[in-house]
Amino acid sequence: MRLKSYVYGQWIEGEKNFRTIKNAATGESIYEISSDGVDFRKVLEYARDKGTNSLSRLTFHQRAKILKETAKYLSSFKADLYPLSYSTGATKFDSWLDIDGGIQTFFSYSGKGKREFPDEIFYVDGDYEPLSKSGSFIGQHIFVPLTGTAVHINAFNFPCWGMMEKLAPTFLGGMSAVVKPASSTAFLTEAVVKLIINSDLLPEGALQLICGSTGDLFEYLTGQDVVTFTGSAETGRKLKAHHKIIENAVRFNMEADSLNCSVLGPDAVKGTPEFQYFIREVVNEMTVKAGQKCTAIRRTLVPASSVEDVSTALKDSLEKVKIGFPSEEGIRMGPLVDEDQVTDVFQKVELLHSVTESVYGGSLEGTANKGAYFAPVLLYTPDPFASDLPHSVEAFGPVNTLMPYTSEEELIKIARKGGGSLVASIFTSDADFARNVTLGIAPYHGRIMIIDAASAKESTGHGSPLPNLTHGGPGRAGGGEEMGGKRGVFKYMQRTALQGSPYTLSHICSEWVQGADKLKPGKHPFLKYFEELEIGETLITHGRTVTEADIVNFAGISGDYFYAHMNEPAAKRSIFEKRVAHGYFVLSAAAGLFVHPAEGPVLANYGLDNLRFTKPVYPGDTITAKLTCRRKTAKEPKENEPAQGVVSWHVEVQNQDTELVAIYDILTLVRSRGNN
Amino acid sequence: MRLKSYVYGQWIEGEKNFRTIKNAATGESIYEISSDGVDFRKVLEYARDKGTNSLSRLTFHQRAKILKETAKYLSSFKADLYPLSYSTGATKFDSWLDIDGGIQTFFSYSGKGKREFPDEIFYVDGDYEPLSKSGSFIGQHIFVPLTGTAVHINAFNFPCWGMMEKLAPTFLGGMSAVVKPASSTAFLTEAVVKLIINSDLLPEGALQLICGSTGDLFEYLTGQDVVTFTGSAETGRKLKAHHKIIENAVRFNMEADSLNCSVLGPDAVKGTPEFQYFIREVVNEMTVKAGQKCTAIRRTLVPASSVEDVSTALKDSLEKVKIGFPSEEGIRMGPLVDEDQVTDVFQKVELLHSVTESVYGGSLEGTANKGAYFAPVLLYTPDPFASDLPHSVEAFGPVNTLMPYTSEEELIKIARKGGGSLVASIFTSDADFARNVTLGIAPYHGRIMIIDAASAKESTGHGSPLPNLTHGGPGRAGGGEEMGGKRGVFKYMQRTALQGSPYTLSHICSEWVQGADKLKPGKHPFLKYFEELEIGETLITHGRTVTEADIVNFAGISGDYFYAHMNEPAAKRSIFEKRVAHGYFVLSAAAGLFVHPAEGPVLANYGLDNLRFTKPVYPGDTITAKLTCRRKTAKEPKENEPAQGVVSWHVEVQNQDTELVAIYDILTLVRSRGNN
Repeated sequence: MRLKSYVYGQWIEGEKNFRTIKNAATGESIYEISSDGVDFRKVLEYARDKGTNSLSRLTFHQRAKILKETAKYLSSFKADLYPLSYSTGATKFDSWLDIDGGIQTFFSYSGKGKREFPDEIFYVDGDYEPLSKSGSFIGQHIFVPLTGTAVHINAFNFPCWGMMEKLAPTFLGGMSAVVKPASSTAFLTEAVVKLIINSDLLPEGALQLICGSTGDLFEYLTGQDVVTFTGSAETGRKLKAHHKIIENAVRFNMEADSLNCSVLGPDAVKGTPEFQYFIREVVNEMTVKAGQKCTAIRRTLVPASSVEDVSTALKDSLEKVKIGFPSEEGIRMGPLVDEDQVTDVFQKVELLHSVTESVYGGSLEGTANKGAYFAPVLLYTPDPFASDLPHSVEAFGPVNTLMPYTSEEELIKIARKGGGSLVASIFTSDADFARNVTLGIAPYHGRIMIIDAASAKESTGHGSPLPNLTHGGPGRAGGGEEMGGKRGVFKYMQRTALQGSPYTLSHICSEWVQGADKLKPGKHPFLKYFEELEIGETLITHGRTVTEADIVNFAGISGDYFYAHMNEPAAKRSIFEKRVAHGYFVLSAAAGLFVHPAEGPVLANYGLDNLRFTKPVYPGDTITAKLTCRRKTAKEPKENEPAQGVVSWHVEVQNQDTELVAIYDILTLVRSRGNN
Repeated sequence: MRLKSYVYGQWIEGEKNFRTIKNAATGESIYEISSDGVDFRKVLEYARDKGTNSLSRLTFHQRAKILKETAKYLSSFKADLYPLSYSTGATKFDSWLDIDGGIQTFFSYSGKGKREFPDEIFYVDGDYEPLSKSGSFIGQHIFVPLTGTAVHINAFNFPCWGMMEKLAPTFLGGMSAVVKPASSTAFLTEAVVKLIINSDLLPEGALQLICGSTGDLFEYLTGQDVVTFTGSAETGRKLKAHHKIIENAVRFNMEADSLNCSVLGPDAVKGTPEFQYFIREVVNEMTVKAGQKCTAIRRTLVPASSVEDVSTALKDSLEKVKIGFPSEEGIRMGPLVDEDQVTDVFQKVELLHSVTESVYGGSLEGTANKGAYFAPVLLYTPDPFASDLPHSVEAFGPVNTLMPYTSEEELIKIARKGGGSLVASIFTSDADFARNVTLGIAPYHGRIMIIDAASAKESTGHGSPLPNLTHGGPGRAGGGEEMGGKRGVFKYMQRTALQGSPYTLSHICSEWVQGADKLKPGKHPFLKYFEELEIGETLITHGRTVTEADIVNFAGISGDYFYAHMNEPAAKRSIFEKRVAHGYFVLSAAAGLFVHPAEGPVLANYGLDNLRFTKPVYPGDTITAKLTCRRKTAKEPKENEPAQGVVSWHVEVQNQDTELVAIYDILTLVRSRGNN
C-alpha cells in the first residue's frame, strides 16, 4: 500500500524513491511513502490562489463554523482512526490524546472564534491611539489575513493532534495550510485528511497534504507565508536558516528539544497528597506515548532529603507499568515508533549514563515482540552541576533523570540549566515556594503547572498543551509559541497600524472611534431596527438638573447611604466640595435621558464596559448625554428567539460646562427588521 | 579624536584598526572609531548580571519613572547635541526628528508604563482561562522579564532616535541593552549615551555602547538575549542566519529595505486639497534626511490621468528645495551621510534608470561643497509591471519613482509588488476607496496612513514611526515589529502560561481570579485602609427582595420608562416573562448592599468594567451581592491629595436560587493608613 499526497485538488502517489513504514507494534511493513513527482511550486500557488483567497474572504464566525462542522464530522469517524493509531505504537489512552485531543482543538478554536472574534474578515487590535491634539488624526491597529499559506512540518508522535492544533488557528486566521507529517506515522494523518477532504466543508485549496519529503518547496516561499516546524532541533535549525526563510523574512515557528523538569516542593514529603500526585505524574510522563512527547518530564528535581523516598516510590510504580501490544486492555505503555527511534534513544541513554547512575530499567530490545519496544529508564545524578548532559541531551523515549536540590535558589539554577523548556511543573502546597520558583524559572519556560491537593484532581497534566494556553518555549525549546487562544491566530495574520481621520478609520474598521460622530436629528435610535442603525450615528439628549432631592431619593431606593452622598461634613473632609450625587444615579439618569420608552426594536441593555466617572456631579449641575452607535454584530439566528444583533453604544455624559462627568459603552440587543 | 565604547562600567578607546569618520557636510575628518580590544563576552555578562538583574527587579512604574527622568535630563542638554547632528548631514528639522523625537519616545513610553502597566515586575496577560469543570484548575498567562540582554544594532540615519526608540521598550520590559550604532554617525550616539550615563539615573550595566564593530559578540548570545537590527538587508540577513542566533533561538527583530509607496486617489485631482497635501508629502519624504529614511516614499502611485499634473507639480516643488549646509537657515535638504553613500545611491539610480525615464534631477557630485551632496531624483515608469527593479531596488537617498495605475485592483497589485513594506500612504477623500485599498494592501504593510482634508493638518506624516504605533513590515521590510506601545515591550519579555488552583495563581499573580475567594467575616472591607485589604478577601451581603414598588420608584427617579420595565404586555411581547427590574436598579441596589455608610478609608467609586446582566430580575426576586478584592495598585503620592491606592473589586449579584444576575468589576480609591 502506498500513501498519497493531496495536492492541487488531487490525491497523487509518489513516483519513485519510496520509504517503507512499519507497524510500530509488530515490525511488519505496512506502507510505502514518497512525494516524488509533486510540483511544490504549484502546491504553494494553489494554496494561496484558491485556499487562502477563499478563507480570507470569510468572516471569523464563518471560519469558526467550519471548524465546528469539521470537528463534528471527524467525531463520527473516530472509530476508524483508532486501529491506525495502534499501528503507530499508541495505546488506547495515547490515541485518545491524539485523536480526540485533535478534534477537541477544532471545537475549542471554534468557540473562541465565535466568542472572541468579530463577524468580520479582520480584527481590531486594541483601543484607538490619539495622535494629535484636537483629535483629527488618530491611530488604530488591525490584524488582516496574510495572502500566503502555512506550511506545517509536524513530528511523528501526534499525527492527528499535531496537525489539528496547528490547523485550527491557521484556518481561523483565514489562511490555507500545507501539511507535511513525519513519514513514520503519516498513514494516520493521511486518513484524517481524507476525512476532512471528503467532508467537503473546507474551501478548495484550504488544506493540502504532502506524504514524503518537502522537496524544493522552500525555494518558493514568500514573506506572506508561514512555516512551522515541530521535531528535532537539528532539522529545525537547518530549515530555519534556509536561504529563502532568511531572504524573504518568512515567519518561522519552531518547537524542538526540551528538557522539561518537574519539581517536588520541600513541603511535599512522603505521605502528603502532593508527593503522591508527583510520583503519579512523573511515571505518567515517562510512559504515556512511551515518553515520546516534547513535553515529557526529563528532569525530576527533588529536595535532597527526599531522593530516597522518591526513587523508591518511582521504582515501585514503574515496576507496575504493563508494556505491550498497544491495543490490548490494561497495557499502559506501547513501543517506540520504530527501530531507528529505539537506536536513537538507546544511544542517548548510553550518553546520559556516562555521567549518571542507573535507578531503574533498561532496554527491551530483542524481546519476543518484533516491535520497537523500550522499557522505562530512570537515572540519577547526585550533582546536577557536574555535567551539562542531563540538561541538554533529550532521549526521546521513557527516560528521566532524578536530581537533588538543596535550596530554592539552587533549584531555580538547575531548572534554568535546561536552557529554555516547554513546560515545568511544581508539586507543592506552599504558595510562597510556588510563587518564588515560578517567577524564578518563568523566563525559561513557556508553561508552568503548579499542583496542590486542590487542583490535582482536575489537572490536565504536565504533558498536555491546551488550545487556550500558549505552547512553546524559549531557547533550546525552539523559541516558538503556538495556540494560546487568540494569540495563536495572530501568528497567521499581519498587524497593520492605521492612521487617519476618525471618519476614515471608522469607515475602514466598521467601528466608531472617538471623533467620528454623525449627528442624526431624525428618528430616535431606539426606534430603529438593527439594519437601520449606522455606525457613528449620534443622539444628543435634552438636559436634566440634578438636585438634592435626587440624591436623597436615590439613597432611599438603592439603600446606598455612603457618606460622600449623605454626610456633608464627611464629604468635605474627603475629596469632595460637598455631598456628591451617586455615580449610579448619574448612570441611571443618563439612561433616563437617552432611552425611548416606546415599545420598539431594542430588546434589552445587557452589558456595560469601561465606565469612568471623570468628575463629581453636585446638586445644581445639569447633565446631558450623548449616545453613539459604536459597533454592530449580527447574531446567528436561533429558534424561539427574534432575529437580532448586538449593538454597542458609546455614551458620554456632560455637565453644564461641557465637562465630561462619565464615559462608558453599553451593549444592547436590537431586533432585526421584518422579523418577530 | 577617538570615539569611546562604554563597556563593563568603563569608557574605553579602541586599540587598533581605526576607521575615520568625516563630517557629512564638509568632508573633513572628525573622528576615529574602533572597538578593538573590547571583551564582548564580558559585555554580555555584565549586561545580564548587572543591568538586567537590577532592571528586572524594578516594577514597571519604577522603570517608567527612570525613562521620564532620563528624558527630562536629556532635554536640558539638547542644545549641545544639535551641532553634532549637523555634522551627520542633518538639517535643523532632521535633527529635531532625531533628537527631540528620540527624547519624546522616552516620555511616551514612560506614560504608557504608568498608565497601561501594573506596579509589578510582571504583567498579567489577558483573562484567566477556565480549564476544568468545577474550576479548581485554571490558567493564566503572564509576561516576565527575560534574563538576557538586548543587542541593538542601529542604522546611521537616526543616531539618537534610532537608539532611543529601541531602548524605551527594552528598559520598560526590564532588560538591559548593548547599543551598537552605525560607525558613520556614532559620535552623536556616543554623546547621548555619555549624557545618560552621567545622569546616573539608570542602574549599573543597564546601558552599554559599542563604537566600532561587534567583533565576536554573537558567539556569546543565548536564548535569553534579544537582537534587533536596522540597516541594509544584506547585513541583516547575514546576522539573522548567524549560527548562534539559529542554534539558541535568539529573538531577532529586523528592519531592512522597504519600497514604501504613496497613493493618490482618483478623486484627488489637481485643485483638491488632497492633491496639494500629496505633492507636499512626496517632496517632504524625498528631501527630509535627504531621503535616507527607511520609511521614505520610494514609489509614487497615481491615477494614469493624473501623471502629467503630478509630475509637473513635483518638479515645480522640487526646484524650490534649497540644498546646502545643514545648519544654515532656510536649508531644506542636507548632504547624504558620506561619500560611500553617494556612490551607493548613484549606482542604484543608474540601475533604476535602466528601466525608467527621468523626470527630475541628478547628482550634485563634485560641487564646490566638499560634502556628500546628492540632489533629488524623480523617475517615471509608464508600466509598473514591466520590471521588478522599481519595486525592489532601494536607493537610500532622495530618489522616487512615479507610476500610473488604472484601477483599484491594479493599484493593489502594484503596491503589493514591494514584497512587504514599512508604510504606505493614501491621499483621498473617498472613504470607500480608502477602505478597499487599505484592506487590499494591509497584509503587505506595517503601517498605512490615510490622509484627507480633515486629517492633513494634524497628520504626523508618512515617514514618522510613532511610539504608540507598531513600526516594521513583512517580507522585504524584514518581518520585524517595534514599538506600538505595550506590544513593543513584550518583545523583550517571556510569555508564560501558568496552570494551577485559583488560590495558587492568585497568590503568584497578586490578583484575585475566579475561585480564589477568601471569606472574611470580620471588619467590613470599606472600613479597611489600602494596606489592610487582602487580595481575594470576600464579603457576602444580606439580601433584598426586589418589589414592584422598586421598579416604579426607580423609573420615577431615573426617568427611564423603557417598556420592558413599565409596560406589562409589551414586556411579555418582548423577551421577558413580565416587567423586569432596571439593570441599573440592580447595580444600585447591589451597591446599597455592600457599601458601608460610615466615614472611612474608601474615597470614591470611580469606575466599573465588564458588567454583564446575566439574568432578568423580576419583582419578588431576592438579591444578594458578593464583593471580592481583586487587585490593589498604590498610587504615586501627590501634593494636596491623601495617600491612596486603587482597589479593584469583583462583584457578583445572585438571586434567591443562587443564579448569577449580574457580574462586574468596580474601581475604588482607598486611603492609605496613617495618612490624611
